[in-house]
Amino acid sequence: MAAAPFIEAAFGRPSTHTPVWFMRQAGRSLPEYRALRGNGSILDAIKQPDLAAELTLQPVRRYGVDAAVLFSDIVVPAHAVGFGIDVAPGTGPMCTQPLRTAADLARLRPFDAEADAPYVAETVRQLAGELPAEVPLLAFAGAPFTVASYLIEGRPSKTYVNTKRMMHTDPKLWNAVMERLVQHAVESISSQLRNGARAFQLFDSWAGALSAADYQSLVQPHSTAVFSALRAAFPDVPGIHFGVGCDHLLEHMHAAGPAVLGLDWRTPIAQARRRMGDGLVVQGNLDPALVLAGTDTALAGTRAVLADNANPNGSKHPGHVFNLGHGVQPEADPDVLAAVVRLVHEATAA
Amino acid sequence: MAAAPFIEAAFGRPSTHTPVWFMRQAGRSLPEYRALRGNGSILDAIKQPDLAAELTLQPVRRYGVDAAVLFSDIVVPAHAVGFGIDVAPGTGPMCTQPLRTAADLARLRPFDAEADAPYVAETVRQLAGELPAEVPLLAFAGAPFTVASYLIEGRPSKTYVNTKRMMHTDPKLWNAVMERLVQHAVESISSQLRNGARAFQLFDSWAGALSAADYQSLVQPHSTAVFSALRAAFPDVPGIHFGVGCDHLLEHMHAAGPAVLGLDWRTPIAQARRRMGDGLVVQGNLDPALVLAGTDTALAGTRAVLADNANPNGSKHPGHVFNLGHGVQPEADPDVLAAVVRLVHEATAA
Repeated sequence: MAAAPFIEAAFGRPSTHTPVWFMRQAGRSLPEYRALRGNGSILDAIKQPDLAAELTLQPVRRYGVDAAVLFSDIVVPAHAVGFGIDVAPGTGPMCTQPLRTAADLARLRPFDAEADAPYVAETVRQLAGELPAEVPLLAFAGAPFTVASYLIEGRPSKTYVNTKRMMHTDPKLWNAVMERLVQHAVESISSQLRNGARAFQLFDSWAGALSAADYQSLVQPHSTAVFSALRAAFPDVPGIHFGVGCDHLLEHMHAAGPAVLGLDWRTPIAQARRRMGDGLVVQGNLDPALVLAGTDTALAGTRAVLADNANPNGSKHPGHVFNLGHGVQPEADPDVLAAVVRLVHEATAA
Repeated sequence: MAAAPFIEAAFGRPSTHTPVWFMRQAGRSLPEYRALRGNGSILDAIKQPDLAAELTLQPVRRYGVDAAVLFSDIVVPAHAVGFGIDVAPGTGPMCTQPLRTAADLARLRPFDAEADAPYVAETVRQLAGELPAEVPLLAFAGAPFTVASYLIEGRPSKTYVNTKRMMHTDPKLWNAVMERLVQHAVESISSQLRNGARAFQLFDSWAGALSAADYQSLVQPHSTAVFSALRAAFPDVPGIHFGVGCDHLLEHMHAAGPAVLGLDWRTPIAQARRRMGDGLVVQGNLDPALVLAGTDTALAGTRAVLADNANPNGSKHPGHVFNLGHGVQPEADPDVLAAVVRLVHEATAA
């Protein structure tokens, strides 16, 4: 398999240009996506490999991004083992019966990717056969904490009250839930990698709601277990660790063992390297709100991110994957994103 | 006026015990509040001084907290000058016509507290006459950024897209909006202080959505203007600066000039003092979700906060006002909060 700028940068090695992709690049911001997807549950679309593969490819064709991210959802494993979770359009993941007791945990059986979600493996195989060598397919899964928060709350939450209650009042059950979700994440990503994905991202989107002490004692060991298992099985595959509003947790998220640390716009790249070492490989971190403010503002923000990634001598640090600091908003103008990709490629060409 | 533990601690001076109050202590968590308030707009309740004073006093009587916080809302000045903003029960502030242009800004005229909102001054005077000397009344106002975000978005937002668009595409209009809101905050707090309040809190609840660079260039000068004006006029009155998810901004929020820096549960107290100096006076920072997890969990969390406030030799740091890291949740059990107050008082008694 030929080298790809994304893979080189993810390991901190020089590449022809700074690679760029966008979280939620396959999504409602694209007219071709809206035309194909309709209004059903995303989980139904994910079950159709031809459709899921096409939705994955749309942004690659339009933008010339340096990675394709599988069209999927972090609740797929829990859904596939029959826990009773769906994604309500416009609301988010909703559980028929949230996970609150050991009996509920029994409903969350171990995940067997090829048996429980064969459609994902099929989509990945199709994509691996179609994508050019320089555009790797990214696998992903939800990190144990973020998936647990959906299962325990039963719906999107601002306060994570039920999740934190379980963490503090029943750490034994909490750790059992997390261990089950470690298995789900490892199995899900492993299957995607075996079928042709070449890198992965672990989304701990909502970990920022936690104090550092709670993260360190009740979450970090489980995220570490995910990265350790995947590194042992796939030593040449880079993993990205990402969360929103996690500035206060970054040292701990980095210690979990990813090759690449995702940053949102709150943390300057240069500051992250001061805190975690000059060699730190980062992904990010343009504020997605700036994309909505028009081309000029988005390009000014893009230039600021690229400048933030400079070495002390002004040269480009090789360990940078350009991305937004969170997912593309549905209202984003694809032409603005296309201009961002062009600027990143042109400004960083070797 | 006799010294009060709250005032002493806010200036970092030893006091008989660590003072404690709760953001949103006068609120739906109290049955006596729900019985009095009914379901109308909070802005209507604020306009009735007898009612507003009684709602302010309820938690003081029940909990024996060390400060009374005026029952009011951060949108009162904008509402009182006729901008067209109300607070929809269960949703939050909603504008008839959001602030997007210079013409919209003209609708946000300067605030004259005694003429535009005489009911607030009357409530404050009633409370100043009733509260014991050891329980100061806290004035408050919204910080310019957080109020601007409500006026510009027109409704609660997760992304602050319109606000960030104005910041980046029309900084001149942005700064004009912020200067107007500096006047509103200073006038609102000054009036409350003139009528008997003895300390104040500036709520920049949503500033954490910003990057440090944007905060520093487009927000910090305006928050600094608020603290500077109030310190010049009321040198003996301590001010608190508070935001949620602001760990990455704390140095800048501290530089704006408050006597007390509010912390949410994401930032350990000891870490804040390592970053900003041993003398730092802090408020916080029990996770409000732990209050919902029951008495044992809430008290364990309370002990952890008190331990976090220890000097290197194990003694209590005098510069600590105990609080939650955000407002009391409506589902909170008042008996749990009462137990927290008792523990803070007993564990810290000199």
